[in-house]
Amino acid sequence: MSTTNESGVNLVPIPTAEDLCFQILEALGVPGRDAGIVTNSLITADARGVSSHGISRLPVYAQRLQAGLINPTPDIKVIRDSPSAVLLDGANGFGHVVGARAMSTCLAKAGATGAAVAGVRQSTHFGTAGFFAQMATEEDMIGIVGSNGAPRMAAWGGRTSLLGTNPLAIAAPTGGSDPLLLDMATSAVALGKVILAAKRGEPIPTGWAMDIEGRPTTEAQAALDGLMLPLGGPKGSGLALMLDVLGGVLTGACFGMGIGSMYRDWDRSEGLGHVFIAIDIGRFLPIEEFKQRIDDLCAQVMGSDLAQGFDSIYLPGELEFLKERDHRTRGIQVDPGVWAEITALAGELGVS
Amino acid sequence: MSTTNESGVNLVPIPTAEDLCFQILEALGVPGRDAGIVTNSLITADARGVSSHGISRLPVYAQRLQAGLINPTPDIKVIRDSPSAVLLDGANGFGHVVGARAMSTCLAKAGATGAAVAGVRQSTHFGTAGFFAQMATEEDMIGIVGSNGAPRMAAWGGRTSLLGTNPLAIAAPTGGSDPLLLDMATSAVALGKVILAAKRGEPIPTGWAMDIEGRPTTEAQAALDGLMLPLGGPKGSGLALMLDVLGGVLTGACFGMGIGSMYRDWDRSEGLGHVFIAIDIGRFLPIEEFKQRIDDLCAQVMGSDLAQGFDSIYLPGELEFLKERDHRTRGIQVDPGVWAEITALAGELGVS
Repeated sequence: MSTTNESGVNLVPIPTAEDLCFQILEALGVPGRDAGIVTNSLITADARGVSSHGISRLPVYAQRLQAGLINPTPDIKVIRDSPSAVLLDGANGFGHVVGARAMSTCLAKAGATGAAVAGVRQSTHFGTAGFFAQMATEEDMIGIVGSNGAPRMAAWGGRTSLLGTNPLAIAAPTGGSDPLLLDMATSAVALGKVILAAKRGEPIPTGWAMDIEGRPTTEAQAALDGLMLPLGGPKGSGLALMLDVLGGVLTGACFGMGIGSMYRDWDRSEGLGHVFIAIDIGRFLPIEEFKQRIDDLCAQVMGSDLAQGFDSIYLPGELEFLKERDHRTRGIQVDPGVWAEITALAGELGVS
Repeated sequence: MSTTNESGVNLVPIPTAEDLCFQILEALGVPGRDAGIVTNSLITADARGVSSHGISRLPVYAQRLQAGLINPTPDIKVIRDSPSAVLLDGANGFGHVVGARAMSTCLAKAGATGAAVAGVRQSTHFGTAGFFAQMATEEDMIGIVGSNGAPRMAAWGGRTSLLGTNPLAIAAPTGGSDPLLLDMATSAVALGKVILAAKRGEPIPTGWAMDIEGRPTTEAQAALDGLMLPLGGPKGSGLALMLDVLGGVLTGACFGMGIGSMYRDWDRSEGLGHVFIAIDIGRFLPIEEFKQRIDDLCAQVMGSDLAQGFDSIYLPGELEFLKERDHRTRGIQVDPGVWAEITALAGELGVS
């Protein structure tokens, strides 16, 4: 079912991982179409090397489904509808499913009017924001996606946890096969890097995190018990806050300290909110002209002279697309502990 | 006309500064209504302590007007029009004027459909992005503004100058008198801080800039001759690039290395592009409910315990609004060299 490489990481063929993920979700009561969306989001993240948003999340999703905190068959409802603005209630469905529905609705509206915004309340963890931004590029649109998240950062200057590492994704189509796809957390670094350092007992650089008392720390475990630091200090903090205004305050979702944690809160739903913006390129320029222009900009980037200490330059998302091509051939890398959890879960559910 | 404070900085009463700025612009052929918009943008920036975007720019604007590179009476045209998307040609008018027109158009469309996007090509330096984002809040909307700019940064990993310190502003109304107003360059720090350090002969911290050979530098002059570094490395670089896609590629404006410098290019216009997004809050929630919710989020921020080394926490824009109140009473701070340039310019133009 999987092979182990030289660093002790399992290499799982993508069809195997997809099949297992899909069957586990179906066994937990998720209808086939929705199980397909979640599977696609998770396995794509793993294929792109973003394993923090891949099938490593399946065990906690399963627990929350079993606890009734993720609804496998949500009645996702449009609760406010305008020509270029729409508000959806996610009914505690999988964020991946709710988000895909919201972005589809947003794209249809943008196709009709030129641009649109969709807001979502009562959602759950939605995987990578880039998954939805990329949907826009497949229809020759630009997609912008934001979300709030469970508190993991303080506002700049504080040490009270009240901001998620709220992600922002922006995607645009190019003349080539891959879009430009920026997908970034508003923390200085991804939480996953701190988790990895803690597992390995290694220190972390200053600037990544602070301890629970609001002091800079280089100890990974103190960082995990404390707070992540925002990207670029006040700028990342401000951006995270404004993403909460757009994703949380505007949509009627929970926001700030009011958001539930997927890992810690077992008596309540997460109450997450997201925002989706779609811009129909053809309302500005003929799409072929746009693609020539964006390819020209990309060529300028790729033709740059290198700075000291670098041996390559990547476009937003490019490194992830390169990994995806490699992993689609060789299989995705899955941590042995994660793989053991998932196969145990499959066993419990009677999935082969 | 002005007094000098203990640090040798001129304190100019705001009505004096406004009057002088307005009269200089009118003497250069800018019609009263447009001169008022530019004056408002510049003096508001000075009042908020953002003197890099205040009347210190007036001399270069005057030179570009006199060189025919800023058009004092532009025929700003809508060249593509959809219910929620509009593209304007700024005809080399003042970016402040073109931007205000674009945001007004965008707000009207968002009022009709729920959300809208305006793109602008053939524009010039537009001052602070926040000036336009704040316009949205006065109509109970959320405003998002982006622009490209003359190259001052490399893509992450490179040392070829091809990205501006492309700004992003996001503003939302609150229940109080001031909106939340995030207005940030995508460079690690503002160029103005490097200019100041160079003037004072002081070193700059690593992480701010690199020299022309792509090596990290702590010498302010080498930084000015070299490149600014992006906010948070690849994240700021990616964000700057996507802002160029939205402001430049999408709008038919110049982009990347193709953008003209306001200071160096005297044989061509800047060819800047901007993007404006407006979201009508009332299409999502009753505005009073939105304001209660955003005030609750702000109260969470302001009620935070302090991190080590901090004695206060500010909301996005708050520090600037505090300065504005102070400066509206005491006058704005103007560098003596800048003040001498402006009064000399006034003299040449026969403005008293």
